[in-house]
Amino acid sequence: MNTLGKNFVFTSFGESHGRAIGGVLDGVPAGIRIDMDLIREALDKRAGRKPTPNPSLKGGEQVQGVSPRALREGDEVEWLSGVLDGVTLGTPIAFIIRNKDARSEDYEWLKHSYRIGHADRTYQEKYGIRDHRGGGRASARETASRVVAGSVAQQLLKEKGVEIQTKLVQVGEEKNPERFNEYIAAIQRDGDSIGGIVECVITGLPVGVGEPIFDKLQSHLAFAMMSINGCKGFEYGSGFEGVNLKGSEMYLSENQTLISGGIAGGISDGTPVVFRCVFKPTASNRKTFEKAYPHPLPEGKGEDKRIVGRHDACIAVRAVAVVEAMAALVLQNLLSK
Amino acid sequence: MNTLGKNFVFTSFGESHGRAIGGVLDGVPAGIRIDMDLIREALDKRAGRKPTPNPSLKGGEQVQGVSPRALREGDEVEWLSGVLDGVTLGTPIAFIIRNKDARSEDYEWLKHSYRIGHADRTYQEKYGIRDHRGGGRASARETASRVVAGSVAQQLLKEKGVEIQTKLVQVGEEKNPERFNEYIAAIQRDGDSIGGIVECVITGLPVGVGEPIFDKLQSHLAFAMMSINGCKGFEYGSGFEGVNLKGSEMYLSENQTLISGGIAGGISDGTPVVFRCVFKPTASNRKTFEKAYPHPLPEGKGEDKRIVGRHDACIAVRAVAVVEAMAALVLQNLLSK
Amino acid sequence: MNTLGKNFVFTSFGESHGRAIGGVLDGVPAGIRIDMDLIREALDKRAGRKPTPNPSLKGGEQVQGVSPRALREGDEVEWLSGVLDGVTLGTPIAFIIRNKDARSEDYEWLKHSYRIGHADRTYQEKYGIRDHRGGGRASARETASRVVAGSVAQQLLKEKGVEIQTKLVQVGEEKNPERFNEYIAAIQRDGDSIGGIVECVITGLPVGVGEPIFDKLQSHLAFAMMSINGCKGFEYGSGFEGVNLKGSEMYLSENQTLISGGIAGGISDGTPVVFRCVFKPTASNRKTFEKAYPHPLPEGKGEDKRIVGRHDACIAVRAVAVVEAMAALVLQNLLSK
Amino acid sequence: MNTLGKNFVFTSFGESHGRAIGGVLDGVPAGIRIDMDLIREALDKRAGRKPTPNPSLKGGEQVQGVSPRALREGDEVEWLSGVLDGVTLGTPIAFIIRNKDARSEDYEWLKHSYRIGHADRTYQEKYGIRDHRGGGRASARETASRVVAGSVAQQLLKEKGVEIQTKLVQVGEEKNPERFNEYIAAIQRDGDSIGGIVECVITGLPVGVGEPIFDKLQSHLAFAMMSINGCKGFEYGSGFEGVNLKGSEMYLSENQTLISGGIAGGISDGTPVVFRCVFKPTASNRKTFEKAYPHPLPEGKGEDKRIVGRHDACIAVRAVAVVEAMAALVLQNLLSK
Repeated sequence: MNTLGKNFVFTSFGESHGRAIGGVLDGVPAGIRIDMDLIREALDKRAGRKPTPNPSLKGGEQVQGVSPRALREGDEVEWLSGVLDGVTLGTPIAFIIRNKDARSEDYEWLKHSYRIGHADRTYQEKYGIRDHRGGGRASARETASRVVAGSVAQQLLKEKGVEIQTKLVQVGEEKNPERFNEYIAAIQRDGDSIGGIVECVITGLPVGVGEPIFDKLQSHLAFAMMSINGCKGFEYGSGFEGVNLKGSEMYLSENQTLISGGIAGGISDGTPVVFRCVFKPTASNRKTFEKAYPHPLPEGKGEDKRIVGRHDACIAVRAVAVVEAMAALVLQNLLSK
Repeated sequence: MNTLGKNFVFTSFGESHGRAIGGVLDGVPAGIRIDMDLIREALDKRAGRKPTPNPSLKGGEQVQGVSPRALREGDEVEWLSGVLDGVTLGTPIAFIIRNKDARSEDYEWLKHSYRIGHADRTYQEKYGIRDHRGGGRASARETASRVVAGSVAQQLLKEKGVEIQTKLVQVGEEKNPERFNEYIAAIQRDGDSIGGIVECVITGLPVGVGEPIFDKLQSHLAFAMMSINGCKGFEYGSGFEGVNLKGSEMYLSENQTLISGGIAGGISDGTPVVFRCVFKPTASNRKTFEKAYPHPLPEGKGEDKRIVGRHDACIAVRAVAVVEAMAALVLQNLLSK
Repeated sequence: MNTLGKNFVFTSFGESHGRAIGGVLDGVPAGIRIDMDLIREALDKRAGRKPTPNPSLKGGEQVQGVSPRALREGDEVEWLSGVLDGVTLGTPIAFIIRNKDARSEDYEWLKHSYRIGHADRTYQEKYGIRDHRGGGRASARETASRVVAGSVAQQLLKEKGVEIQTKLVQVGEEKNPERFNEYIAAIQRDGDSIGGIVECVITGLPVGVGEPIFDKLQSHLAFAMMSINGCKGFEYGSGFEGVNLKGSEMYLSENQTLISGGIAGGISDGTPVVFRCVFKPTASNRKTFEKAYPHPLPEGKGEDKRIVGRHDACIAVRAVAVVEAMAALVLQNLLSK
Repeated sequence: MNTLGKNFVFTSFGESHGRAIGGVLDGVPAGIRIDMDLIREALDKRAGRKPTPNPSLKGGEQVQGVSPRALREGDEVEWLSGVLDGVTLGTPIAFIIRNKDARSEDYEWLKHSYRIGHADRTYQEKYGIRDHRGGGRASARETASRVVAGSVAQQLLKEKGVEIQTKLVQVGEEKNPERFNEYIAAIQRDGDSIGGIVECVITGLPVGVGEPIFDKLQSHLAFAMMSINGCKGFEYGSGFEGVNLKGSEMYLSENQTLISGGIAGGISDGTPVVFRCVFKPTASNRKTFEKAYPHPLPEGKGEDKRIVGRHDACIAVRAVAVVEAMAALVLQNLLSK
């Protein structure tokens, strides 16, 4: 199902190259004024128009390693229901974003090919049919709907004092944010791609969010994060590195929040919640293409159509906005109970 | 809620020191013969009676680093419904395990203390009341119910050719399984505890399990694994290590299963599914206790009551059985659709 | 929540006088060709353009007792996703119907008034805000989305041999269909309104649909029918009349389907499923208005704006299409398991 | 699934002639003292030990038309979890009732027979296996678990000022409660059975319970009531009788609560909520048996084994307690949101 949440429910729809993508957000309280500028800001961040790794870039200037397509694709939000004069009605909020950048011909060759590192084959085998144009539902384009919905959730959270801060903390082996842009630019020049780690810190969350046994806070966060395209792992607090620490080192250390991640027994403990997600490098890079699909394409399609500059060198850059959106959807859902 | 799954639904109940723990398993097909020996075997594995890290130990012999309590606690399963003459009826299967090792006095001091690294405080603040005896619902005792239910699920999966293999692959910095027992024994002698990484490999899963967008296979697996006590992270395929690989290195490597983890776009691709979970060292170790609670307990309770030999040195050892159970519950649920 | 179903899931959105109403249908199998003519036909039936009680009326001719508004309101369906070249993709189908007949000024007086027999007050008190224009979400306009979604479901059901036949069987005290139009016309001339009973017969349903205990077939049907505006009761098989029969009369009668309604123990038994819904007369009728709101309206709004010819004399007429749609959604959901 | 509710969740398990029936109640707030006497009282009412139609009967005296089996069957509740010293812990409450009256031999003949008016055949065809002893899950025995859970819910509701009053208002054609016992006694002497109508009045419910569109209050009530064995219809407010009223008669009448049933647009309006359920006569009556199964049973089983005095003449009598329980479960769930 294309639905997330129980009491604050987000339903996503739309193919990347169909008429529109969009979503329905149910369970939004009535009487809340929506700040459309914040939604625009979040969409810009996701599209790479708002530089995430290097905040010194000016507005409109593009971050390294983001495909030009991201900038071209339309993301004007049309609000269909649930909002009257900018204020929520308590009824479901439906919104759509029309698809503009429908260069479907670029994907013509995909009708008969499965790309490595993509979901082409599993979709085809599961459904027996697929919208080959740009990955259909599997396209990262779908995350624009998540960002719109997540941004609404984030506004509701802010009213309760909950803040979500998300940032890129590692690109390849590089852990110094000041060098991220340079690092990614070099990868891109080389026709390659690289992975990254995104960290999210949630402050202001009251004690008591999450439930014992299955509905643990970390379970809901992990579920949502693992649903983001390209995410290969989730950890909170001491995470995977923690395997190298003995109990006495861990629990007697000074920074218990880094160890606990702000969660005990599945329940928020009132300190900041800290988690990280790792994103793989995209398989859509020139080097891989040249080796994986060495032969000329049928019907004389040039190779440039398939790859030149169309894909991000480091998808973790834009994933920052999606991680933030998903965290907001999860938290607002748990707080709506 | 204490329920996992949609079409194959497991509900867990019971406090560690109440009358019984147990569960209800709904959505089990009718006419399946349950192999009670396999359930016994899984419970033994969870209790540390069946050695996980070192299979050379004989039956009944205990693995290093497992608390004696695990052996003493009762785990006789009483089947209340859903099974007639050993065969499922298609109705909900309810089972209970009576609690035996009710040394409640050991926990008397906890009435007024919150242990670090435990859920004592978050439970108290969330519910305003808690069963302080042994952690109540937060106790790892609850996982016995998961293992019973998961074992039933695993039997249903085996009939479809799906096999789940789970093992410990790292203890502290040690990655050589032959040295795990020795390593853990040393940690235990030192009054300390240590983390570990559990790996799970699923074979025989057909193409098409999992759904695009939210209900991805990795999302459901992560949700379930993060719900296990002490689990601080989940990764599949290339995982966190993958951040160090460039796209060209990753996708042109020979072993695509290690990279993809057997999942593409949230959907199983027919190759083995591979994921790992990291478990923290338990906070209940002598070294931490001595420093964290240095003063004598009120009412003359000796410190030995609180800690001596009652806790695992490496909870990852017994988590192996729980990871396997949770994987089975997730897969059977997704396949029951 | 504005969502119905578990494995075949319909989400409805939109205010009657906002930009659009619409829905998302999730769980539709891939590769099904949608017959848009059948959807048009169902929408016509709902709008009173296809005469339900008297099939001798010609196309486009309007049935008695249906408000002219029903004819004017737009119901052009725009398909946003999930369908490529008329064939389903297995992804969520989103559709919208733009609102056209936005005579919002007619509702200006409602900003400060609660109509009897309507949800004006409960909405205001529940949400603290409401879209007063035409009832907002409470408007029967919303049922157009149900009919679109239900019509898709009905097509899926037909492929499995399941047919749903729905008709008006009683209007006021009149049980002879041949006299329904005349009866309703007289009510309408009198400025009054009248209730009706709709009967639904489902044939071709296999044995085994529905589950014991809570998820009984009749429970799901009742849930869905009671959600239709104006529906005050649901019965199946012998229903309320059956209270007058003794057991020996009932179970030894020849027509067991009429008694059982095609369901035993919550599970379809392979014979036709028969149920009935009663619809109240609408409170929006001239006679009630003149007595309930005798005084001139503020700001000189004429009374005709409020009532003349804007409402159905017998909402059961158009409810026939909605009952059929809801039955289809319920059955397709249960069969999607 | 054998589960009802979303935020206050009841799971039912157990066959009538297995080891035990029982349930799990999740979402119960912590710190509530459970009054076990009220639960006993509700179970007595359900068992016919507390006379429903004629309150003048003394305690322990049995109401007319209730089978002796109802009195003999055990209903001692054992609480397994979720309660410590009589106070809820906020964790799932599991309880069981051991089965005592296991006269399984009475049902031996059912191994190869399907009774009319029962679910024998549909169960067999759906599951391919069934517990033939006393109907298995389809037995009314299962409703004892509902009554226990519903009684807990009712106590939670009372704390919020919500009261549920349920009573028998019609038996066959008889509408005078003073004549119910006599009427039922005559039916029973005649070896026959009879239907009845149960009315439920809920007072103290705040405005705003229920949601527009699908999750209407009446939808949830209807779903739950239709899940009770033998219930053939649900109506609220003006119900089916309302079809005979014109709009002007209905909405200008003095008693709007009788018309509206306390619900507008699916949302409680603060006045008493009134609904009714009709129950069919049981098919298990001597007259039907003698005609439906005229031949001697195989293996010389006497006919008396099958029918004599084992079944209720009017199941609506005992359904009163179940209707009350189900109403409580529905309301507590909606209020737990």
